[in-house]
Amino acid sequence: MAVATQTLEELCINSIRFLAIDAVEKAKSGHPGLPMGAAPMAFVLWNSFLRFNPKNPKWFNRDRFVLSAGHGSMLQYALLYLTGYDSVTIEDIKQFRQWESKTPGHPENFMTAGVEVTTGPLGQGIANGVGLAMAEAHLAAKFNKPDAKIVDHYTYVILGDGCNMEGVSGEACSYAGHLGLGKLIALYDDNHISIDGSTDIAFTEDVSKRFEAYGWHVQHVAEGNTDLEGLAKAIEAAKGVTDKPSFIKVTTTIGYGSPNKANTAGVHGAALGGDEIKLTRDNLGWEYEPFVIPEDALKHWRKAVERGANLEEEWNKVFRDYKGKYSEEAAELERYLSGKLPDGWDKVLPTYTPEDKGLATRKHSETCLNKLGAVLPELIGGSADLTHSNLTELKDSKDFQKGQYQNRNVHFGVREHGMGAICNGIALDQSGLIPYGATFLIFTDYMRAAIRLSALSQAGVIWVMTHDSIGQGEDGPTHQPIETLASLRAIPNLTVIRPADGNETSGAYKVAIEKAKQNDPTLLAFTRQNVPNLAGTSIEGVAKGGYTVVDSEGTPDLILIGTGSELSLCVTAAEKLTAQGKKVRVVSLPSWELFEVQDADYKESVLPKAVTKRVSVEAAASFGWHKYIGTEGDTVSIDRFGASAPGAVALEKFGFTVDNVLAKSKALLG
Amino acid sequence: MAVATQTLEELCINSIRFLAIDAVEKAKSGHPGLPMGAAPMAFVLWNSFLRFNPKNPKWFNRDRFVLSAGHGSMLQYALLYLTGYDSVTIEDIKQFRQWESKTPGHPENFMTAGVEVTTGPLGQGIANGVGLAMAEAHLAAKFNKPDAKIVDHYTYVILGDGCNMEGVSGEACSYAGHLGLGKLIALYDDNHISIDGSTDIAFTEDVSKRFEAYGWHVQHVAEGNTDLEGLAKAIEAAKGVTDKPSFIKVTTTIGYGSPNKANTAGVHGAALGGDEIKLTRDNLGWEYEPFVIPEDALKHWRKAVERGANLEEEWNKVFRDYKGKYSEEAAELERYLSGKLPDGWDKVLPTYTPEDKGLATRKHSETCLNKLGAVLPELIGGSADLTHSNLTELKDSKDFQKGQYQNRNVHFGVREHGMGAICNGIALDQSGLIPYGATFLIFTDYMRAAIRLSALSQAGVIWVMTHDSIGQGEDGPTHQPIETLASLRAIPNLTVIRPADGNETSGAYKVAIEKAKQNDPTLLAFTRQNVPNLAGTSIEGVAKGGYTVVDSEGTPDLILIGTGSELSLCVTAAEKLTAQGKKVRVVSLPSWELFEVQDADYKESVLPKAVTKRVSVEAAASFGWHKYIGTEGDTVSIDRFGASAPGAVALEKFGFTVDNVLAKSKALLG
Repeated sequence: MAVATQTLEELCINSIRFLAIDAVEKAKSGHPGLPMGAAPMAFVLWNSFLRFNPKNPKWFNRDRFVLSAGHGSMLQYALLYLTGYDSVTIEDIKQFRQWESKTPGHPENFMTAGVEVTTGPLGQGIANGVGLAMAEAHLAAKFNKPDAKIVDHYTYVILGDGCNMEGVSGEACSYAGHLGLGKLIALYDDNHISIDGSTDIAFTEDVSKRFEAYGWHVQHVAEGNTDLEGLAKAIEAAKGVTDKPSFIKVTTTIGYGSPNKANTAGVHGAALGGDEIKLTRDNLGWEYEPFVIPEDALKHWRKAVERGANLEEEWNKVFRDYKGKYSEEAAELERYLSGKLPDGWDKVLPTYTPEDKGLATRKHSETCLNKLGAVLPELIGGSADLTHSNLTELKDSKDFQKGQYQNRNVHFGVREHGMGAICNGIALDQSGLIPYGATFLIFTDYMRAAIRLSALSQAGVIWVMTHDSIGQGEDGPTHQPIETLASLRAIPNLTVIRPADGNETSGAYKVAIEKAKQNDPTLLAFTRQNVPNLAGTSIEGVAKGGYTVVDSEGTPDLILIGTGSELSLCVTAAEKLTAQGKKVRVVSLPSWELFEVQDADYKESVLPKAVTKRVSVEAAASFGWHKYIGTEGDTVSIDRFGASAPGAVALEKFGFTVDNVLAKSKALLG
Repeated sequence: MAVATQTLEELCINSIRFLAIDAVEKAKSGHPGLPMGAAPMAFVLWNSFLRFNPKNPKWFNRDRFVLSAGHGSMLQYALLYLTGYDSVTIEDIKQFRQWESKTPGHPENFMTAGVEVTTGPLGQGIANGVGLAMAEAHLAAKFNKPDAKIVDHYTYVILGDGCNMEGVSGEACSYAGHLGLGKLIALYDDNHISIDGSTDIAFTEDVSKRFEAYGWHVQHVAEGNTDLEGLAKAIEAAKGVTDKPSFIKVTTTIGYGSPNKANTAGVHGAALGGDEIKLTRDNLGWEYEPFVIPEDALKHWRKAVERGANLEEEWNKVFRDYKGKYSEEAAELERYLSGKLPDGWDKVLPTYTPEDKGLATRKHSETCLNKLGAVLPELIGGSADLTHSNLTELKDSKDFQKGQYQNRNVHFGVREHGMGAICNGIALDQSGLIPYGATFLIFTDYMRAAIRLSALSQAGVIWVMTHDSIGQGEDGPTHQPIETLASLRAIPNLTVIRPADGNETSGAYKVAIEKAKQNDPTLLAFTRQNVPNLAGTSIEGVAKGGYTVVDSEGTPDLILIGTGSELSLCVTAAEKLTAQGKKVRVVSLPSWELFEVQDADYKESVLPKAVTKRVSVEAAASFGWHKYIGTEGDTVSIDRFGASAPGAVALEKFGFTVDNVLAKSKALLG
């Protein structure tokens, strides 16, 4: 094929392909196959449909684009470069997959403007897309007026076979169908190849039929390599269906254009190699040097800059008009977008004294959520089918349902992983919403990949986890967290807080809300069972992660360190030891992460190095506690699986009693 | 309704209902709704189809029954009691959900004979069922002869709405459809209620259509409360379809029989209460005291004992005949079932010297797997679409596919969680198979719930995890484990091993195989990148979890503790420090769990308390390491997310260098 035969469209499409081929070749690492096959659909979408402004990647009313098949990252980097984003230059593309480059192995929203969410772990992106579409639906229902549609954009996702095999995508897409999210449009790159070879070896289901079963509008573009008109018509038709999300199966050839490697797993995740690249250049009539884009193509692509500026300007006019007519709503939206909290928001958080009735911290959590929900309309979330166990309902709102998107109580169904990825999507919409997702603490295991991604991708989600120990009781070891707190504390950038009582629950929410606005997630662990309100606990104390709640005269002989429901055991044990003439300090350590970032002096003031007799008390694994108890300390902990029994029985049988704290303390004191 | 009008069948069915009602009432905890609604299908299945021997719950050729909706555990306990298992007496039922009872909150295979797998975390049971059916298919293809079908049984699963919402079930069922597992029959208790209320609020997809899309044979019994004949016909028809798994949607009423609570979430997970129980007794004509089963019903149910004895005896005859004709195969099957390993099996594990070429430990893993696969035909497994990255292919076997079940290379597809639950099912088939499942270490996050269940439910699986650090390289932080090792080490009963080289990889597999036969899982973490073979490493050392590989003369001044790819940094640093006159010991600590169970003298001999200057070196989070480095030690570790770059660059940038080990060592040595 000679270059002369290439249409402008083909030049534009081949620009994507060769940027991917050349970048992967230079890095000797990466996935050229997907960009080569998906280039036509990406061209049609970005050239004819996607509304965005390359010079303002954060323009609020932009369409959201998610490359769920994140290993094809060069597709996205090519699009960002070609359409004129400042975040990805040709030099950046030459640095593909290199240290600190703007073009890491998988799309990372925190590295590259124009990337909405971090993808790569398969299935997450499409589930994030459901969250993005839910955010749009909510904001549109809340802010739009009959004469002013200020929230009006689509979420487009390109996903692959791998995404469709992952359970998380099934969960989220089933829910998207339930919600009838008409502005969610997914393009399925049906290339029949995954890493191990043909999908025939493991994945022969009828994917389209499955999406129909979910309640999606389903189409098929059979000639996805070449049928640009068919692609455009399908997207147009998808936009026309407003009461269902759309699934467009686009049959393509992975590595399209490579004479020997197209339609093989060999082109999925490895460089083509010099010889094959030459053959591919010949085959596609591409006579340009590596990283060189023909002027015609670049000029055409770059029309996106002017188009985008116009789109944003049009929207600005609409918004100015809106602001004139609906100043209050406009001010609220502007606050949302600013990331600011309303003045005095935290004044609603209750405080308690020991005289106040002891309640489960999940009950205190319910109070906080409801008080915060009243002053923070951006709070939106719910539970994975445990609403009345997690106590996460906002009583002054109603259910977020199809056609009722203005409401804030989300029923995720028994879909923890989907919930996690959806919450990440809502947060990464960057429109100021604060999503929360709830289940039993143990079931963070089902959604761990999404929780980790919230921490990595700076998604300001609040994870509300109840039934946080063997105190959970009768449900038994399948439902009782043991190692769960440790496994979550180990995740970088995730703040885990396990409050001891009412004051500490308020403190935990204060931190969580502030962190959410700073784009950091927080995980809160609450008890099922009642706990007393303690003297000395405070909102301010929680903010420091660890603090002294009971102190001795002079240097203590012993420090008891407790969290959550076990802090009260420490306090009672300390009283008894003090009565016996011992000098005992009790430290509450609701959040290791918050404590670790305090300055050295503060940490030393709470846990003086000289005091080596220390006992930690937490109804969970001892794993990690040696950092605080040192080589001479001891733990009251549980390093085996739990057991089915009433919660109080389980706690006692496993040694979470004042007597056991006293026994371990006395053994240390000698 | 008067009792006189009850048929024998109704009496039998109501026996289940009232055992559930009364047990939950006594415990004031539990889920009566499912047993009340699913009692008819359970009766039909257990009375007319299920082939089992109550007096020998481990009879090899029994049909497997899984209650995937494990919260309805009283259904299963009622069935075990009524059909005459010794494991559940009426006294046990009265102890429902109490400390150390045989009737815990959710079915636990390790507590109650007759329970095949541990359920409760939703979706796991049906996915375990896929594994059980795969085990049957494999053993049948391997051992059956045209004149002797010694492996010939079904796997039946009852699952609910919650199971169907979970992604793990979707993954496993898609794969079951691909494999055409004709002897897997799932009964879907379609009761339209989950904890939060009607499934209308979150789950309105067409489940049957989805299963059709997966390639299952799908039926519907519309009157599941009463249509016993329809239920029987459907199960009969399902058995008749031999090339597809069967899905029978059975529409039922949760809490059937309760005048005020049937068909409400109120009966899902709480006791009915005395008044409602009285009304339910009246409504169903049940005139018996709590925990009393009418003689006629019990007598009918208990026919299962004689039926079961006959079934097993018939099979014994077939097997005796088989043994006569096919002594070799019979001996092999008997070895499988004995849990024994063939003599000298571990002699195939290779050893290495420092002169041998350094390879990635994943490459050593491939060698071990293949050598073991040749002597252990019970080894069966594969990867979640990363076969040629995980290097898990058994080269002398072929792909396990529909109609090719005798093969041992399983292609799970991009379905980590499904793979995990399937491997658990294969192990819990208790037929001696050793399943292994592989992916990148980071993606244990996707399958953590299944890994935890392997540890809890004593499933002897080998989890083969490669690309175990930031040495993974270019894929970046979404693919680079940081906190992953810590989060896995924290799981009770799971042995995690991170070998340093060829010898340690052999040692890791020796432990893993032995543990699998003892019904304990092991997780192996392997490098992507090459590592040298070190002097002093050994198979025996790995078995102890930690051991000295380089020692000083006399008491060391400093101990360097390394694992996996970082052990070689320790060895090189020690050489340099020794040359500078320091006394340095290097300890390899491939498995914390194995080290912890050594006696105190041994542990002291490796890590003497008196030596407080210690540096751990592991390309992972420091979380948990303070147990070994103490208060005066230091770590070479990474407590932030990784970054996309070539692996060697990432390792260097994050400080995993000999120089950094030396710098931290010298800082401690002063």
